[in-house]
Amino acid sequence: MKENKIGHAFLKSALTLESRFGSVADTLHWVRQQNERINVQVDRVGFEELADWRLDEAAGALVHKSGKFFTVGGIQVKTNWGNITSWEQPIINQPEIGYLGIICSYFDDTLHFLLQAKVEPGNVNNVQLSPTLQATKSNYTQVHEGRKPLYLDYFLHAKPEQVLLDQLQSEQGARFYKKRNRNIIILIDDAIQVEEGFVWLTLAQIKELMRYDNIVNMDTRTVISGIPFDLEDQSILDNAFSSSQGMSIDQPMTASCFQSSYSLHDFDAILNWLTVMKCRYELDVVPKSLFLLNDWVIGKTSISHVQEKYFKVIATKVSISNREVTSWMQPLVEPCQQGIVAFVVKKINGVYHFLLQAKLECGNFDIVEMAPTVQCLTGSYEDHTKVPFLSYVLAAQQEQLYFDTLQSEEGGRFYREQNRNMIVIADDDFPEQVPDNYCWLTQQQMITFIKFNNFLNIQARSLLAALRLYNFAG
Amino acid sequence: MKENKIGHAFLKSALTLESRFGSVADTLHWVRQQNERINVQVDRVGFEELADWRLDEAAGALVHKSGKFFTVGGIQVKTNWGNITSWEQPIINQPEIGYLGIICSYFDDTLHFLLQAKVEPGNVNNVQLSPTLQATKSNYTQVHEGRKPLYLDYFLHAKPEQVLLDQLQSEQGARFYKKRNRNIIILIDDAIQVEEGFVWLTLAQIKELMRYDNIVNMDTRTVISGIPFDLEDQSILDNAFSSSQGMSIDQPMTASCFQSSYSLHDFDAILNWLTVMKCRYELDVVPKSLFLLNDWVIGKTSISHVQEKYFKVIATKVSISNREVTSWMQPLVEPCQQGIVAFVVKKINGVYHFLLQAKLECGNFDIVEMAPTVQCLTGSYEDHTKVPFLSYVLAAQQEQLYFDTLQSEEGGRFYREQNRNMIVIADDDFPEQVPDNYCWLTQQQMITFIKFNNFLNIQARSLLAALRLYNFAG
Repeated sequence: MKENKIGHAFLKSALTLESRFGSVADTLHWVRQQNERINVQVDRVGFEELADWRLDEAAGALVHKSGKFFTVGGIQVKTNWGNITSWEQPIINQPEIGYLGIICSYFDDTLHFLLQAKVEPGNVNNVQLSPTLQATKSNYTQVHEGRKPLYLDYFLHAKPEQVLLDQLQSEQGARFYKKRNRNIIILIDDAIQVEEGFVWLTLAQIKELMRYDNIVNMDTRTVISGIPFDLEDQSILDNAFSSSQGMSIDQPMTASCFQSSYSLHDFDAILNWLTVMKCRYELDVVPKSLFLLNDWVIGKTSISHVQEKYFKVIATKVSISNREVTSWMQPLVEPCQQGIVAFVVKKINGVYHFLLQAKLECGNFDIVEMAPTVQCLTGSYEDHTKVPFLSYVLAAQQEQLYFDTLQSEEGGRFYREQNRNMIVIADDDFPEQVPDNYCWLTQQQMITFIKFNNFLNIQARSLLAALRLYNFAG
Repeated sequence: MKENKIGHAFLKSALTLESRFGSVADTLHWVRQQNERINVQVDRVGFEELADWRLDEAAGALVHKSGKFFTVGGIQVKTNWGNITSWEQPIINQPEIGYLGIICSYFDDTLHFLLQAKVEPGNVNNVQLSPTLQATKSNYTQVHEGRKPLYLDYFLHAKPEQVLLDQLQSEQGARFYKKRNRNIIILIDDAIQVEEGFVWLTLAQIKELMRYDNIVNMDTRTVISGIPFDLEDQSILDNAFSSSQGMSIDQPMTASCFQSSYSLHDFDAILNWLTVMKCRYELDVVPKSLFLLNDWVIGKTSISHVQEKYFKVIATKVSISNREVTSWMQPLVEPCQQGIVAFVVKKINGVYHFLLQAKLECGNFDIVEMAPTVQCLTGSYEDHTKVPFLSYVLAAQQEQLYFDTLQSEEGGRFYREQNRNMIVIADDDFPEQVPDNYCWLTQQQMITFIKFNNFLNIQARSLLAALRLYNFAG
């Protein structure tokens, strides 16, 4: 009952491009203003200068003196998945579950989401649209100094009936060890003070903003990816992928969840496929001192692979000047190459299906998660033939590109890491038959899996967030 | 589509108490015969005599010389859940995912399940009804010597359309470290050779056999617990809990999955509750040498707690004589007390709801799992007041007891461990309002959670398996 109502409310928000608070163009202008008003300086320093952090030989890791925030340690990985069966690498350990929270409220009978133009040191363009609240457990339990995050109390005191979505979701499995965040959306009926740097947007507006490079940050994308719509009526999704005009949301709607007469695979078949994948592939991860990692070198200013591949851990001094200057030091992870994440989407049985792969990443919570058709985040992809479907995606014609932008990873940990995000509509020749570690899912099936934690990885969720339900002309 | 068909097939099997292969009484008689025909001798020996096993100081564990099977290591546990916030204990490590598989086939238009009267050294009564196949990964990949398990090939070569159920499910979180098994049911249409010691039973017969102590083993119980029925028509469950006669399965049926207008909490509210629990409770488990565990002593013949509490690891020589004598040595885990697991069930909004708790156990895969209302498996429960709802359950009147038997833990690892399994129908005075780490779920909601791994713990699943859908007179 509630679910239907909520699904419908989300759907209406996803179809509304204009709001009393302004247009998408207004928001872009406002973000640009926020960017101009601020100066962000990130200087590389040596680890020795990195105040409050130290390379701790006893711990075998880069740690903060408080023992809080995160550490960068090492792991030794063995697996039977993929071509490389064993390796060592640095990894971010941050065992606490943080909050990624968005406040919603009705204006003109339409749900609006309160986002923040937030500065992160690693952001390409300084300011991106973040959830209302991004808080680590240390933040929200106020263990150490630092002021209380804005709007925190709304989340701490939300009643169950105010919670529209509340899920534990994984972070980047190649960089974080089993890290998860609490993705939560709450509905506040009371008038809310909009603090400086915050803005009300409809879901359609957020999705439209995702069509621009690096505007909507990773945290916002993951939170909105789990939003359920009442999309029993497939014509809405048809519309989303087509350019025809005129849609209505007045059809009777019921969530299809498990039953879907039109999906290629039923739910149990997908679970069977996942069980087979989790039984077939083994992932053995053993902690190892950062100082003893094979193929990795701790230099004065960075921790890097001997061949300068994958990524580096760098030490930085961050200075952010607005009216006042704030500065601090912190490590960041810098990628060595740009990556690509892409969904191939194909209409099968009259319904759009997304091609997912069962992907093993060393920091995964449960061996494999479902990932986009193509995901080669930090590896080289010069040799297209090694990565299935990569050639296809890169050769896609303009009219096949439903979505093609640069999106950033979280700027609090990653230094200017942006990846090409693509959704490619397959042509008729694209085979329905795929290798056995790939599977076709409908949008509804993906949304159902997202409800349960650790099924869709962050790259898949981020791409799914890009799915618009309104028509657009061009 | 398939799901409905399968759900209906399972339902019919769950309603059929008589089959061409005999009655429940026949099966009981047959199991007794199997028991009489066999002699099982389990002698306690010293660890020094335990051939092929050794207490390995370097590994800090009790290990098999092959490196296979399982090891008994140590862990140090810290948590903010419960009254005891830190402890150390031995734990079984068995990182491989094993098979618990049942073959189904149609006879007289009704699904029958192929079970095995299997001897395990730890079984109270030697022989219990086990799944068609119980195999470790070493078994089924044939890494080491030993003959191929019976019926293995059917599972290895099952096509997706033959797979009726395929789930990863957790084992005892207080004893195993993140152990999971693959619970799988496959449908075989071809004629199958029934090997000696195997029997075809309907689901109703298996459930009826669960009403006797220690007949249906833990592995069978967990596999059948995940079986989905088409129970949109609540009257079937009403019937199950009542003693009235005359039910029909001809009603139109559709799985209700997430939508349930009659459940106390909708699905998202339950997920919200679980997310809150997983964020609130912390579980920090660090491996520690078995030789260095506080409060545990490695003796000549057992590893035990200084106060003789919880459980012991013992060394045994097992001799099984049938026509020939087989003998081997292995460690087993012996409980120090009997435990109790109990569901309180209450009709709310006209629908039966089960009271589950979010329970943290040290070997849990994901912090907490949903456990029965009462679960004090190996701890002392003399002081009833310490365990919520325990006094209520123990004081239940005869007419409130839907189910009350002794059920065994898996006899391949646990020595004569049996626990009292109860389902108690709450009286009208039982409060709907419960402490915030408890939640009411319907049977359908539990079945949906079971589809996704690591939501319901093995004790909850075992009890859920006891739910009969046929009427019984007394």
